[in-house]
Amino acid sequence: MTTPRRIKIKNRPNPDNVLVVGSVAYDSISTPHSFGEKILGGSASYACLAASYFTTPHIVGVVGHDFRERDRKKLAKRGIDLSGLRTDETGRTFFWKGRYHENFNRRDTEDLQLNVFERFNPQLTEEQKLTPYVMLGNIRPDLQLAVLDQLESPKFVLADTIDIWIETKRELLSQVMRRADLVVINDTESAKLTGETNVILAGRHLRAHSCRTVIIKKGEHGAVLFHEDGLFTLPAYPVTELRDPTGAGDSFAGALLGYIAATGMSDFATLKQGMIYATAVASLTVEDFSTDRLAKAGCSEIKARRKEILKMTKS
Amino acid sequence: MTTPRRIKIKNRPNPDNVLVVGSVAYDSISTPHSFGEKILGGSASYACLAASYFTTPHIVGVVGHDFRERDRKKLAKRGIDLSGLRTDETGRTFFWKGRYHENFNRRDTEDLQLNVFERFNPQLTEEQKLTPYVMLGNIRPDLQLAVLDQLESPKFVLADTIDIWIETKRELLSQVMRRADLVVINDTESAKLTGETNVILAGRHLRAHSCRTVIIKKGEHGAVLFHEDGLFTLPAYPVTELRDPTGAGDSFAGALLGYIAATGMSDFATLKQGMIYATAVASLTVEDFSTDRLAKAGCSEIKARRKEILKMTKS
Repeated sequence: MTTPRRIKIKNRPNPDNVLVVGSVAYDSISTPHSFGEKILGGSASYACLAASYFTTPHIVGVVGHDFRERDRKKLAKRGIDLSGLRTDETGRTFFWKGRYHENFNRRDTEDLQLNVFERFNPQLTEEQKLTPYVMLGNIRPDLQLAVLDQLESPKFVLADTIDIWIETKRELLSQVMRRADLVVINDTESAKLTGETNVILAGRHLRAHSCRTVIIKKGEHGAVLFHEDGLFTLPAYPVTELRDPTGAGDSFAGALLGYIAATGMSDFATLKQGMIYATAVASLTVEDFSTDRLAKAGCSEIKARRKEILKMTKS
Repeated sequence: MTTPRRIKIKNRPNPDNVLVVGSVAYDSISTPHSFGEKILGGSASYACLAASYFTTPHIVGVVGHDFRERDRKKLAKRGIDLSGLRTDETGRTFFWKGRYHENFNRRDTEDLQLNVFERFNPQLTEEQKLTPYVMLGNIRPDLQLAVLDQLESPKFVLADTIDIWIETKRELLSQVMRRADLVVINDTESAKLTGETNVILAGRHLRAHSCRTVIIKKGEHGAVLFHEDGLFTLPAYPVTELRDPTGAGDSFAGALLGYIAATGMSDFATLKQGMIYATAVASLTVEDFSTDRLAKAGCSEIKARRKEILKMTKS
């Protein structure tokens, strides 16, 4: 198979790989205007496809006997290494059914079946343990810790989480956050974690108590990076064709980590540039159901959006 | 009286004046943490104080027999020309009582007494008619039009409005918007005007149908400029001591127009720079009740915040 097109980083023809541990799922999604039935989803799917524009992602996850060959091909086509995607023949793939309401600013879970994901217990191969760049998707914090324990001197670990773990596994989650190099969460999650609805206060609180560096995502209002070298605010890409916001955050995180791996750097300036690419990539995800737009977009579209973001933020 | 300190613009030692037509009010405000009783408010008060950091504002408004000498002095101290602030001895000053709820993202009007403002009918003097830079505060659109009709070839007119005129005087308001050089509104108002909750779509719609240039303010999420030369997004200043959001929008508009008058320019690049100053000034307003912080802040604080905004948006 030929390597899919990637965004080239100067003087880095052979970027380091990234490992993405997370869910691979089937989603059934209703929006005010449309719906998608049993479509490819899950944090690892989105993150890997996003990262694939910068480097080779290695997925670690589990699917059931119902996982379709065409979805496997969709991931493989973007150069994602699927050797860590285990098939558990005893059950079905993780399933989520959700409904977005008017303006997409609220969503309800209508059905959730963990299925084979309930027994997910990531065991890394010797090769995977050596991967320098690692994304811990929003899986249970004890599993995130188990992955961290298996890694051999990773260069950079990005951790995500989700409301339910803040509510039910706070202490374990804190351990993950302290050990990660970068925590990427949304404003609802940062408010739940800190009790601060003011994003600036929440970010400072997290830096002071829980993690080195944090990015708080604000959906259509962009994202804020809290770093020891300063604050960086970035608006969202001006999306006007919002169809399905599912996976935007995972795409953002995956693209950001992919960029970090591709440059081999993770200083303040690199994180800023990575956030701009990540914003561009996430904006593609929300313009169609599932991973369709993300998988097909192409480098030139990402680069064009990056340019647009640079232009509209230049003072 | 000595001229109060102003932010100096290179090669423009004697900036053009601005005329601000709007309300001067007494507000009684409750917030989740505190309250202010019968404190100086009104769109013209905030806008003039904000503009006073860049040029000489001339206020056009009306107050009642209860207007306090100390409030008059507060405005005069910042070099605001009060000759156009008429005192109507037959009644009391416009009064608004409001309550902000948790997180300040909702407010209720608990009392509203137009008092002498009900009979406000701005009549400009010959000198005022010649003022090159004009802000039409959020007064009734027919009064805004009456002011526009009295002006003699203004260089730049900034118009603001408020929900009630969108609901009750839409046709007259449209005329104002078409005749203004710049319309500055918030995202609730842009949604009401266009039926679009997506800020990008709302801004484009307004530019296509209603006005040349528009800025949509998003409160803590910053502001977006829609201009024929492009889009410009700016975050809010990272305020962590929010005490009273009243007047933030008026301060933003006043500072922006003050900067335009001070530079004598109103192209895309100037508007961007003006928005950064306006964001800095508005952030001061919300850190205390009424105009207290705004009136006392000083140029160095504004310049420091401008620098911070530049830094946190630099990619």
